[in-house]
Amino acid sequence: MDEFKKNLKKYQEIINKEMLKYINKDDVPEKKLNEAMEYSLMAGGKRLRPTLVLATYELFKDDYENCMPYAIALELIHNFSLIHDDLPEVDNDDFRHGKPTNHKQYGHATALLAGDGLLNQAYLIISEDLAQKQEAEDIGNRIKVFNEFSIAISKMINGEYLDTELEGCEITEELLKYIHVNKTGALISLAVRMGAIIGGASEIQIKKLTNYSEKIGLAFQIKDDILSVEGNEKITGKPVGNDKEKGKCTYVSKYGLDNSKQILDETVNEAITNLSEFGEKADFLKQLALYIKNRNK
Amino acid sequence: MDEFKKNLKKYQEIINKEMLKYINKDDVPEKKLNEAMEYSLMAGGKRLRPTLVLATYELFKDDYENCMPYAIALELIHNFSLIHDDLPEVDNDDFRHGKPTNHKQYGHATALLAGDGLLNQAYLIISEDLAQKQEAEDIGNRIKVFNEFSIAISKMINGEYLDTELEGCEITEELLKYIHVNKTGALISLAVRMGAIIGGASEIQIKKLTNYSEKIGLAFQIKDDILSVEGNEKITGKPVGNDKEKGKCTYVSKYGLDNSKQILDETVNEAITNLSEFGEKADFLKQLALYIKNRNK
Repeated sequence: MDEFKKNLKKYQEIINKEMLKYINKDDVPEKKLNEAMEYSLMAGGKRLRPTLVLATYELFKDDYENCMPYAIALELIHNFSLIHDDLPEVDNDDFRHGKPTNHKQYGHATALLAGDGLLNQAYLIISEDLAQKQEAEDIGNRIKVFNEFSIAISKMINGEYLDTELEGCEITEELLKYIHVNKTGALISLAVRMGAIIGGASEIQIKKLTNYSEKIGLAFQIKDDILSVEGNEKITGKPVGNDKEKGKCTYVSKYGLDNSKQILDETVNEAITNLSEFGEKADFLKQLALYIKNRNK
Repeated sequence: MDEFKKNLKKYQEIINKEMLKYINKDDVPEKKLNEAMEYSLMAGGKRLRPTLVLATYELFKDDYENCMPYAIALELIHNFSLIHDDLPEVDNDDFRHGKPTNHKQYGHATALLAGDGLLNQAYLIISEDLAQKQEAEDIGNRIKVFNEFSIAISKMINGEYLDTELEGCEITEELLKYIHVNKTGALISLAVRMGAIIGGASEIQIKKLTNYSEKIGLAFQIKDDILSVEGNEKITGKPVGNDKEKGKCTYVSKYGLDNSKQILDETVNEAITNLSEFGEKADFLKQLALYIKNRNK
């Protein structure tokens, strides 16, 4: 496990360093908007999605720089979604990673536009990669990834809409799954698939890794719901009982705490099963699945 | 002029029909979000930007369907920006094209996400075009257009930020221009450049058309400012004196009404000068420049 934490930290550091390159620090009139974008990007976070891109890519190739733009673009998208989710008209959250949310720090209008800016900048990064590598042999794979990227984000927005719209409503198990698959799952699957496709994985390998990603995406959501009930506020940075207070439908409210933990266990085991053919190379991804289960924030 | 209006109507009808294809009408859980996106797209509007894409493309080639995805993507972006601009935290407008704004019709959270959804869907359309045409000879041009697209939208968001942030402030002439070039100009230039690049224009032709686009973009903004002072509320669908009431810095507040009209005249003439080498083929674009000057909404 220590080896895993060391590797995770390595990925996080590489990603943080790389992200800073994409923030405009010039003394332009819209400087404060760029600051607001940087504020959320650098406020913390596990860098789970970009780490998944890089680690999956590394199952196939060594030069992770080659898929870095897609890892960074994905983290920008994740942060766009957090800023807009936190807004008063959606979740109305005041704190994130233990710091004031973007709109609390910069005001409502600036937070709105900082979110818009991050969403757009993700695509700017992809467009620059395509422009630079248009002669590359794998340009077709990169275009495919761009297409999957936009589809996944569309799903995420749909999931966010349903999550907000159905707050406080009794919903079916089917709909609960649909929301999670869209809101959280789509981006996690995208992360793994992007790494695999750019890495040159075979169709069968992509299928296995997609299964893995779907299971860890589900595990991530169940664990989030569990933490919202029994997490340590000082560690998670989010108020405990927040979901319940808002009448949100979660795994815990649907199945109870103990059953949710059992489902979590099974889901992580299924995730790991899909990695068998990759042997030792997939150790990090295995440990990552366990980390999702055991994390305390 | 009658010929021009007939052609403009033809473009508008083609665009409206084409846009409907990109709206998901399925009975999905997020159906109401799709309705909100459709509501704004179909609420009216001049379709100026997509018309510019198609008309510029037609200076070079006849099969306008070939650049249609870019025309539609741009109109989606325009509508995303209108929805977010109208939100309470930005311009707080209740009506647009004489109808309730998106948040007035669907609520604040849904309007936020409908805007996000349209921004993302624009890129989804581009990604599908690239995926379908990745073997095409002009794939490099299409990737270049995707890159310019994301840069222009980034400028638009910056311009919107400054327009909001500086409301009620005394600003320099230089900053006023900077805001307009970013907020309105970037997307109009993009429209013309996209049509030219996909149409296969030469570097010199692209330069001339870019000059044209910059002038009509400026003319568009000046005319908007003039209409805000002396327009007919029933025709424009926007309250007269709205800008003044909000303390917005506009061409009229900076130069006065008469001087603004003179600047508008000169700007439109300069735009038209840049079309000379295209002869009769550019008649529509010439008339469009005059239309921007003479429109009453």
